[in-house]
Amino acid sequence: MPKISRRGQNIFSSPIRKFLPLVLEAEKRGIKVFKINVGDPDIAPPASFFPAIRSYQKKILPYAPSPGIKEHTAAWVKYYRGFGLKLKPADIIPTMGGAEAILLAITAVADPGDEFLIFEPFYASYKGFATMSGVKLTPVTLKVENNFALPPIKEIKSKINRRTRGIIIINPNNPTGMLWAKKDLAVLVKIAREHNIFIISDETYREIIFQGKPVSILQLPRAKDCAIVVDSASKRFSCPGARIGCVASYNKEAMRSILKFAMTRLSVPTLEQIGLVPALSNAGPYTKKIAAEYKKRRDVVLNALKKMPGVVCREPQGAFYIIAKLPVKNAEDFVKFMLTGFNYNKNTVMVTPAEDFYITKGLGRDEVRIAFVLNIKELKEAMEILAKGLAAYHRKSDSYKF
Amino acid sequence: MPKISRRGQNIFSSPIRKFLPLVLEAEKRGIKVFKINVGDPDIAPPASFFPAIRSYQKKILPYAPSPGIKEHTAAWVKYYRGFGLKLKPADIIPTMGGAEAILLAITAVADPGDEFLIFEPFYASYKGFATMSGVKLTPVTLKVENNFALPPIKEIKSKINRRTRGIIIINPNNPTGMLWAKKDLAVLVKIAREHNIFIISDETYREIIFQGKPVSILQLPRAKDCAIVVDSASKRFSCPGARIGCVASYNKEAMRSILKFAMTRLSVPTLEQIGLVPALSNAGPYTKKIAAEYKKRRDVVLNALKKMPGVVCREPQGAFYIIAKLPVKNAEDFVKFMLTGFNYNKNTVMVTPAEDFYITKGLGRDEVRIAFVLNIKELKEAMEILAKGLAAYHRKSDSYKF
Repeated sequence: MPKISRRGQNIFSSPIRKFLPLVLEAEKRGIKVFKINVGDPDIAPPASFFPAIRSYQKKILPYAPSPGIKEHTAAWVKYYRGFGLKLKPADIIPTMGGAEAILLAITAVADPGDEFLIFEPFYASYKGFATMSGVKLTPVTLKVENNFALPPIKEIKSKINRRTRGIIIINPNNPTGMLWAKKDLAVLVKIAREHNIFIISDETYREIIFQGKPVSILQLPRAKDCAIVVDSASKRFSCPGARIGCVASYNKEAMRSILKFAMTRLSVPTLEQIGLVPALSNAGPYTKKIAAEYKKRRDVVLNALKKMPGVVCREPQGAFYIIAKLPVKNAEDFVKFMLTGFNYNKNTVMVTPAEDFYITKGLGRDEVRIAFVLNIKELKEAMEILAKGLAAYHRKSDSYKF
Repeated sequence: MPKISRRGQNIFSSPIRKFLPLVLEAEKRGIKVFKINVGDPDIAPPASFFPAIRSYQKKILPYAPSPGIKEHTAAWVKYYRGFGLKLKPADIIPTMGGAEAILLAITAVADPGDEFLIFEPFYASYKGFATMSGVKLTPVTLKVENNFALPPIKEIKSKINRRTRGIIIINPNNPTGMLWAKKDLAVLVKIAREHNIFIISDETYREIIFQGKPVSILQLPRAKDCAIVVDSASKRFSCPGARIGCVASYNKEAMRSILKFAMTRLSVPTLEQIGLVPALSNAGPYTKKIAAEYKKRRDVVLNALKKMPGVVCREPQGAFYIIAKLPVKNAEDFVKFMLTGFNYNKNTVMVTPAEDFYITKGLGRDEVRIAFVLNIKELKEAMEILAKGLAAYHRKSDSYKF
């Protein structure tokens, strides 16, 4: 039997999805599992979305143009104008969700063997995209105890070598909920320019912030040449099943190359491009509403975590996640316990062990990520159950093994 | 300004899409351009498709599971049973069109620097996927004069080296319309087994055939371990804008790896997965109807080409393309002439120069691909205009340059 590739063997398993079998088993036993592990919003997309899709009246469903359906790309242009960005249609290419945007941006600027700096903890799928495209991720560690602050410039620069092609940032951050301040962005842009490398800025959660105004790295004039934004409609319009994102950059060479990659795979789904035109054209009212909702949820989770003995966390400023350091040796073991050895009135909670959000071995082993993807009432219940689970886990021997 | 990657620079431009500006200019001058260049069907998808999408009643649009929505993957299982294949749901992973299926299959079995044998001429996007994934395509040349027949086994084997990870076939073939006979497939499987490499079989056009029964390489028992089918709903259900395809293989190791890649990009569009359930569950009536339609169109094109002096072509057995060798030195120059220097009663025709369907330098320079994507009436008109254009081109000096 022929062997698969090394990258096929090494591709990591999503930490978010690998506990699914235990969830299903728990549910079979009649346990209700509050799932605050996946970033899968429970909120309906903008009211315009489904009607816009239903408005499609053509009898045939041809390929969309590779640079996007004209009205759709124009709607992204309009959307970005809301942040003072003067992107032209040619500076934007719709993608199959933020996921493809990331893969195309990486592929356009890096060859197999090249490297990117990335701040850990980070959205774990980046590991998969790196494996697929043959590039290496070099971690720069941020610490919850240190408020996930930018480390000294010297430390960042020391990780750059001749194979480094860019710095990847996620802003607002998944999984920490951290926002990069404009001055932090300016520091990173300065480093990128000095080393003649790119910044790939993942701004999927741009408007889901709990203070200040939404920010894009493209607002920094000095980022014009070096920044590539990877974006997604999934979270800000609560439509992850639509699989629509985009790449946006003023760097014409990068965009030309990304367009050629996009032509190779032909097009992005037609109906969802149409469905998102009204939402993109008038994003503010909807995104403000959901940001307010996520802020309330953030408060519920934060307040509950603060009351749990031994838990360390910081206040997320955006996105809908929080990293919590738990008073356990091994968060993965705790998560397994919650799914297999615990229930409270037939209820339990699924959170994501954070170890896989790191590259550096050993980091994040006692941390979990919580996603605010339930309504306030359920989230309160889930946090109570989590507290009870943590207490029960402590009553057991630390050596509890699944 | 930072430089993009070598692969970003080297990624080839789709031959199908690069003449688009000339088409637009011709249309501005009031010329009607009959487009028989792109494989974009003018036929409506199965009657069940749009109603199935409109039947979606949930208020939210979450990620679909990475292995596909249960009903959707089950519909693919049912679909393949129609060919006697006993694939289980775990042997099938829905993808974003055939395009992503190809990329995932290549990535799962080959590392950067590895090689695939591919029969030229072939669907040019494979070049893009190879560049993206860092693999090399080694051409085995098929010739129109030779009826695109399989070359001697020795010739094929001589191209296999220690970096070769597989053989790519497209069956029925785009752009030749050729079918691989079962005995040809058996030969290729034998070679793959002897060298312990994979066969990636692109069966996008499986049912669009003009003789015999639809075939999958998975019907060959000895292909069980080494064959990976990349498939697409786009052509057989006339819905390229839906972006739904799949990877199917009995090789569990390959499928495990492809699932992990699929998890990285989370999911395939929810609505289109639902839209295709009825079509996949009862494919026969629709695919038989469109195969009959494409056969009629094939006859129109073939008969017209046969009457054109100096044109060499063969009878396509499937798909909806034909490669025609024209009595010109440079088909690209001829295509430019048709768009810029010719019209017949304000009409002209756009075909695809075939050179980019080859890797070997110089091949295909006098060939074009014609796609049967117009109705009979329009196709007849288009072929008349093509004949007139060819005659006009000959009246001009051979040295006509754009």
